[in-house]
Amino acid sequence: MTTTATTLKGQPLDKQALESLLRRRLFYTPSFEIYGGVSGLYDYGPPGCALQANIVDVWRKHFILEEDMLEVDCTVLTPHEVLKTSGHVDKFADWMCKDPKNGEIFRADHFVEEILEQRLRGDKEARGQKPAESAEEDPDNNKTNKKKKKALKGKAAEAVRLDDAVVQAYEATLAQIDNYNGEELGALIKQFDLRNPATGLQPEPPVAFNLMFTTQIGPSGGLQGYMRPETAQGQFLNFAKLLEFNMQSMPFASASIGKSYRNEISPRAGLLRVREFLMAEIEHFVDPEGGKKHHRFHEVEQEELVLLDRHTQLAGKTTPRTLTIGQAVRDGIVDNETLGYFLARIHLFLEKIGVDQTKIRFRQHMANEMAHYAADCWDAELLTSSGWVECVGCADRSAYDLTVHAKKTGAPLLVRQRLDTPKVIEEWTVEIDKKKFGPRFKKDAKAVETALLGLAQPALATLSAALKATGTVSIDVAGLDGGKAELTSDLVTIEWTKRSENVREFTPNVIEPSFGIGRILYSLLEHNYWSRGEEGGDEARGVISFSPAVAPTKVLIVPISSKAEFKPIVRDLSQELRALGVASRVDDSTASIGKRYSRNDELGTPFGLTVDFQTLKDGSVTLRERDSTSQVRASQATILAAIQSLIRGESTWKDVQAKLPAFEAQEVEVAVR
Amino acid sequence: MTTTATTLKGQPLDKQALESLLRRRLFYTPSFEIYGGVSGLYDYGPPGCALQANIVDVWRKHFILEEDMLEVDCTVLTPHEVLKTSGHVDKFADWMCKDPKNGEIFRADHFVEEILEQRLRGDKEARGQKPAESAEEDPDNNKTNKKKKKALKGKAAEAVRLDDAVVQAYEATLAQIDNYNGEELGALIKQFDLRNPATGLQPEPPVAFNLMFTTQIGPSGGLQGYMRPETAQGQFLNFAKLLEFNMQSMPFASASIGKSYRNEISPRAGLLRVREFLMAEIEHFVDPEGGKKHHRFHEVEQEELVLLDRHTQLAGKTTPRTLTIGQAVRDGIVDNETLGYFLARIHLFLEKIGVDQTKIRFRQHMANEMAHYAADCWDAELLTSSGWVECVGCADRSAYDLTVHAKKTGAPLLVRQRLDTPKVIEEWTVEIDKKKFGPRFKKDAKAVETALLGLAQPALATLSAALKATGTVSIDVAGLDGGKAELTSDLVTIEWTKRSENVREFTPNVIEPSFGIGRILYSLLEHNYWSRGEEGGDEARGVISFSPAVAPTKVLIVPISSKAEFKPIVRDLSQELRALGVASRVDDSTASIGKRYSRNDELGTPFGLTVDFQTLKDGSVTLRERDSTSQVRASQATILAAIQSLIRGESTWKDVQAKLPAFEAQEVEVAVR
Repeated sequence: MTTTATTLKGQPLDKQALESLLRRRLFYTPSFEIYGGVSGLYDYGPPGCALQANIVDVWRKHFILEEDMLEVDCTVLTPHEVLKTSGHVDKFADWMCKDPKNGEIFRADHFVEEILEQRLRGDKEARGQKPAESAEEDPDNNKTNKKKKKALKGKAAEAVRLDDAVVQAYEATLAQIDNYNGEELGALIKQFDLRNPATGLQPEPPVAFNLMFTTQIGPSGGLQGYMRPETAQGQFLNFAKLLEFNMQSMPFASASIGKSYRNEISPRAGLLRVREFLMAEIEHFVDPEGGKKHHRFHEVEQEELVLLDRHTQLAGKTTPRTLTIGQAVRDGIVDNETLGYFLARIHLFLEKIGVDQTKIRFRQHMANEMAHYAADCWDAELLTSSGWVECVGCADRSAYDLTVHAKKTGAPLLVRQRLDTPKVIEEWTVEIDKKKFGPRFKKDAKAVETALLGLAQPALATLSAALKATGTVSIDVAGLDGGKAELTSDLVTIEWTKRSENVREFTPNVIEPSFGIGRILYSLLEHNYWSRGEEGGDEARGVISFSPAVAPTKVLIVPISSKAEFKPIVRDLSQELRALGVASRVDDSTASIGKRYSRNDELGTPFGLTVDFQTLKDGSVTLRERDSTSQVRASQATILAAIQSLIRGESTWKDVQAKLPAFEAQEVEVAVR
Repeated sequence: MTTTATTLKGQPLDKQALESLLRRRLFYTPSFEIYGGVSGLYDYGPPGCALQANIVDVWRKHFILEEDMLEVDCTVLTPHEVLKTSGHVDKFADWMCKDPKNGEIFRADHFVEEILEQRLRGDKEARGQKPAESAEEDPDNNKTNKKKKKALKGKAAEAVRLDDAVVQAYEATLAQIDNYNGEELGALIKQFDLRNPATGLQPEPPVAFNLMFTTQIGPSGGLQGYMRPETAQGQFLNFAKLLEFNMQSMPFASASIGKSYRNEISPRAGLLRVREFLMAEIEHFVDPEGGKKHHRFHEVEQEELVLLDRHTQLAGKTTPRTLTIGQAVRDGIVDNETLGYFLARIHLFLEKIGVDQTKIRFRQHMANEMAHYAADCWDAELLTSSGWVECVGCADRSAYDLTVHAKKTGAPLLVRQRLDTPKVIEEWTVEIDKKKFGPRFKKDAKAVETALLGLAQPALATLSAALKATGTVSIDVAGLDGGKAELTSDLVTIEWTKRSENVREFTPNVIEPSFGIGRILYSLLEHNYWSRGEEGGDEARGVISFSPAVAPTKVLIVPISSKAEFKPIVRDLSQELRALGVASRVDDSTASIGKRYSRNDELGTPFGLTVDFQTLKDGSVTLRERDSTSQVRASQATILAAIQSLIRGESTWKDVQAKLPAFEAQEVEVAVR
């Protein structure tokens, strides 16, 4: 499959070649493949596992350690009540519809989108225009960021010319495909007569399908539970304990790295849409007053980001702007400093792990995309062969979660802040003589009290005056006989009072950067992949140019011969690298040096250490750099020091080449035994 | 609760004080506590999370990196068919029984055990003997290793004297409590009239309760799935790919670190029996021929282990022997070198993270405890206030798992090994002329062929002779009319042939060391906890003496004052420690220095760095060691170097004290602002 996506070197991306490499080298593999596999589930093999661990390690240092975040590890199993309160039980759903004949199941929005796009392609063909790449492969179509189409049977478009009005209607529909609810999607299926190519039938009306995996906790089957769809809730539920652990100091952030689960209706996009995935989430708790400033914002202010704001999108455009984050916050494009700070930090993180800087943008959610409680939300999207893929979300969740959980449980999920200057409050206050009030109103006492305490200040002022003047007033009480209650001055006193508060209570707002590690990992693979063949003219040879920080293995040790005298040298090098904390592997197979290096170029191993016959004589070894395939030669100690400094990022390959003598050798394709 | 357990300093363990500390410092906390909690689920707070990460990090270096194991990360979600084949669907169950009145649910073996122990305690009391600690707290009772009793209501034993014969019957029952199946447990409940103290009724007969959490994968509800109960199966299913990744080289090991799930009937022992837990599992694949030697066995041969073998246990004793692993393998106590190698490596790992060396033993499974396919199995047990707790299992699973999955799926989960010397095979072989054979036997052809090819060598020799002599023979074929088939020499040739095989095929055996990280973590907390109060005479102050390798935070930075001029020094120290890869925390609260150090003694932080007024003058800082509370003073650079060398294990506190001048200061209990 050729897409508009490109490799690291700007070559057209041969996705099939890349996927074949990733499977061959066991970066990842479909789970349970010998049992036929289960869609949306993948296992990571050794290089994928190491890559994932390295990305997580950089993440932990970049976010948790750098900012003293409080890491927690909460359970995946979550009882019903928690996710009912958070809104997931009612709202965490996609619309699905079913073919009435063959029972095939579609995600309704994907179905509508795919059939309409198919017809539009057929129309272009009939008009003799070159059909555009399918939207899936169109990097400028921002609608593709969250979805990957089903491979509908009979996908090839028929060349049927459509009326201009129909084309317009289809395009208008596609432009707001994320906006429709189930009923509307059902109406579109009817209106446009959208049929499953496999059966020729319209699917049944869409029904909501909750994406959470359910299970029963405990032996009695009484406790309904779910596998969490995000790691956030555990952090919110522990808020009070975390605040105490942080010695009541605000703002602070918690963070969590763990698996989450979503029972996707029809996952078919490799690592980009899976049912079990690793997330890294930060919940930064901030005082909602004072404009959500961030004390380290000045450190990132000059960071330039590519921003696609909601106004641009609503105007039907997808051309982003490049701005410093300082400017974006000053101009109100990004809601506040704390949100802006994290957008910049996310950008720096993606840069650090080696994401292609020309393939990142930050897209703001449109009003209808955001949860109703969210103040602002941006996605970091990475450009891949599946279009722009949402890899990091960064939302201002306001005080929503803490508020609903506090309300449901009565737990004080709030901050009590001692005020330096006590706050003086002057107001009308009501005092009730409970001893008389109860007997007077009997069963209505509660309703009368609620009505009285619910009155606004001006009403209380009026009542106070009336009560003082006449000794009796009447107030409206819903549900009471006659709708009114008579109050007398022996029951109630209403006075102008003055008091000072030393403590302010507030529910923090939450800024939530949320990372899909699997999506980042896959994008990184595409961004760092290229093919050596195009340059040299030989058979295409894949290379993945991982930065040393994330490369699964940093150094390959290659003895040129399997003779016994090489073994102690290889073992020593291995042990010395381990002592330096550098992950290395030995390849003492009988394959040629060239083949062995090729294999490790595919694995993304940045450096190769060759032990040859010269080593036996003078102890020198050669060091090869993956991307240039150039080599230097020096003593073992010098080379080990060079490796350490390269991996720590203290020197570049150019620096090393400038210092150490070059070594010229062909990567011969014959086995040397 | 006082138990026979002791602290690191040999003091009686005050478990309540320890648990209060662990909660106060947020090592872990019941999940969903504000919703009332769910038993068997715990969240790790920041120190618990860091401790867990550090244990895993040591584990990864000690096992995976040291031995080039192939790490994989497989999914938790597992389809029915896989776990049906592995035997988990049918056999991964406990027996549970229910109170007919209040619906209370018990694990049947725990119920029987608890009531009998209660009666025995009552008997001792009636006889005027000091009742023994309950088995739960008796470190010499090896039956407690896997269970923690339910807190039955009305637990206090009534002082009722039993007949001597009854006492004997109870004791005999308890000695083999792990042996009974559900029916037998039900019979014991009837026989001994065991009643739930809460209702005075016998529970209903035990039923099998499968411990796996079930769920549905996909929207159609058609695919039954489970949350994996162990990480092993994903490794087995990927065996062929891993072998290829390892370039067909044997032996090798895969390893996995991830969550597993068991729906425990009634979990009530804190971190020791939970429903969601982190496991680290190794599957070492080894050739079953040649005695399962291990090429690095000589490196660990002299390691001394405390072994409680099955013969000792069957003789009713619990006194272990201390042997070198070399001796144990030579004597046949441990089945083979590979198993022995891993037992020693497990021991070294536990030592490395700081497990109390006097509280480790290796207990061999008795024949009836092991799975039928296991060749040998040992548990590393750690002594805690709940008795001996199984923390690591190390089993020889033979070729069971690979065999059943290969048989079910047809996947070649085996090793093809090129033989250096081809193996010459001489034997009687059958050749069938298919063209004539089919038409001759029609629908019975397959049955006749199967019968013929199933014949043993001597039978073939006889047939060959007869065929040559008479040109016709008859063989038994079950299901055929008359039970016999006539074979003629035009259909079949039976000859003595000679051929050589260059490839040997075999299914590897698996040695599986399997670690329960949560249990190890909890045991480590108990083993490293002690109380300073007993020594100094002040109020008891808890200390957890983690080794620097696993301590959640390595260094606490304490500015003596919150004045502005201290801030840059603190920030610099913080950054320098981060650059050295040393996890540090700043405590610039207004609490006294003493209070701040106390808090960090509870968190197990090994070193404290104090910035005081002298620092402002000459840049010197003090370094405090947690266990001795002694301090040294030197320049920042010198102290940082000392910290690094202490944390790397290159020097001890004594070494540091010998080199750097002591600093004498009281840990004053007044706030200095």
